[in-house]
Amino acid sequence: MIIIGELINGMYKAVTRAIADRDEVLIHHLAEDQVKAGASILDVNVGPFSNDPMSDMRWLIETIQKTVDVPLSLDSTKIEVIEECLKITKKRAVVNSTNADIERMDRIFGLAKKHNAQVIGLAVDKSGVPDSREKRVELGAVIINKALEYGLSIDDIYLDPIAMPINVAQAQGIEVLETIREFRMICAPAPKIVIGLSNVSQGAKKRSLLNRTYLVMAIASGLTCAILDPLDKDLVDAMIAAELIANKNIYCDSFLDAYRKK
Amino acid sequence: MIIIGELINGMYKAVTRAIADRDEVLIHHLAEDQVKAGASILDVNVGPFSNDPMSDMRWLIETIQKTVDVPLSLDSTKIEVIEECLKITKKRAVVNSTNADIERMDRIFGLAKKHNAQVIGLAVDKSGVPDSREKRVELGAVIINKALEYGLSIDDIYLDPIAMPINVAQAQGIEVLETIREFRMICAPAPKIVIGLSNVSQGAKKRSLLNRTYLVMAIASGLTCAILDPLDKDLVDAMIAAELIANKNIYCDSFLDAYRKK
Repeated sequence: MIIIGELINGMYKAVTRAIADRDEVLIHHLAEDQVKAGASILDVNVGPFSNDPMSDMRWLIETIQKTVDVPLSLDSTKIEVIEECLKITKKRAVVNSTNADIERMDRIFGLAKKHNAQVIGLAVDKSGVPDSREKRVELGAVIINKALEYGLSIDDIYLDPIAMPINVAQAQGIEVLETIREFRMICAPAPKIVIGLSNVSQGAKKRSLLNRTYLVMAIASGLTCAILDPLDKDLVDAMIAAELIANKNIYCDSFLDAYRKK
Repeated sequence: MIIIGELINGMYKAVTRAIADRDEVLIHHLAEDQVKAGASILDVNVGPFSNDPMSDMRWLIETIQKTVDVPLSLDSTKIEVIEECLKITKKRAVVNSTNADIERMDRIFGLAKKHNAQVIGLAVDKSGVPDSREKRVELGAVIINKALEYGLSIDDIYLDPIAMPINVAQAQGIEVLETIREFRMICAPAPKIVIGLSNVSQGAKKRSLLNRTYLVMAIASGLTCAILDPLDKDLVDAMIAAELIANKNIYCDSFLDAYRKK
């Protein structure tokens, strides 16, 4: 399971403040703590309130790269920001994200090929988030085909079925879980499959319980990656247990510690 | 989700002692607590150390029926014990269990028809627990066919794919989860599907974590019933959250309480 740490995001007030004050200490802590807790990629997002996303993203990336040595997920809707960031990331980056719109895919996959980056592809297009698994799978296939057209390898694509908040789109839970199963069969080898986990509990109570339960169900369906809070210990414990049951790691009495040491 | 409470079982020392001493108080507590925590059926098992299973089962059943008014799951390998118990259960009983052997099915389904009981059918035969999902599904179909032959309705059969301990048969986890999916498609309407949950963590560490993670994965695959410890609050919370994500109950902010009040 690939964990993409979600905590360096301007959605969090402390991060917005750190960006405004150019406070490296908080960002260093968030980067180190997430990597220590198991994140192998860190998401970087200046949030919706940034006045200068280009400069803020650049500062975040430079700050993070002073303290940890992991790939970054460049989380921005602005293609020109992504393009600049791809020039300064030291490790192979993940572009977060493209949707299934032709123009955006052309730009993003072109950039990804040029800069040897991976890409998260969202199963959504101009008509919005699909209601059904069938439409999601169709968009997933469109994304894979376009990526291959640009010379990317399947292994460099993370398909995202778009997990929706339970309290507003409850019926979508099953659709997303079934989409994950079908994404696995879309091509061989199967693409990576990712969800933005915290989204499922947005606005709901008992968020940690809902997040970890959703993650375990998604792992049962074949999820291979999630953008999540790696500092939620109960969540990571549940993930480790689910991967054990799915036979991805060998059981030993100290399986929680063993996984974390690895 | 149908919860069959597992705690009245001679595997637990306190229960063995209560049986030996004819101590009604402990049994009353175990029965009431499990029903209050959400069990709609109580499993009754004298355990492996009973010198007189017939008399001990009869006493347990009579004792339980003095305090709660729920169906009982008659958990015994001895057909003559099951036959006697079926005569004294006040609610419609569940026979736990038959396997896919012809002689046992003939006896158990004959009794079930005569006494209007439901039956748990284990996907196992004389050659033991199958390694593969295919063999499990084949045995499930054999059980369903034989039950129908005896005039039982599909709705009265609980198919059990046999969940194995993770620490000795780790690769079986996925086989069991896939079997659950395939059991749903074995006939229409789908049969009930049950697992003996605690078995998966037998001899392992972090049993509660493994149990609730396995349960959530099984619910994602379509499980409709489990024999479990309803007093494990984290386990029941996880079950409620999983059923919410699977859209079996409507989300509200107090979804944990709402489920329990129902």
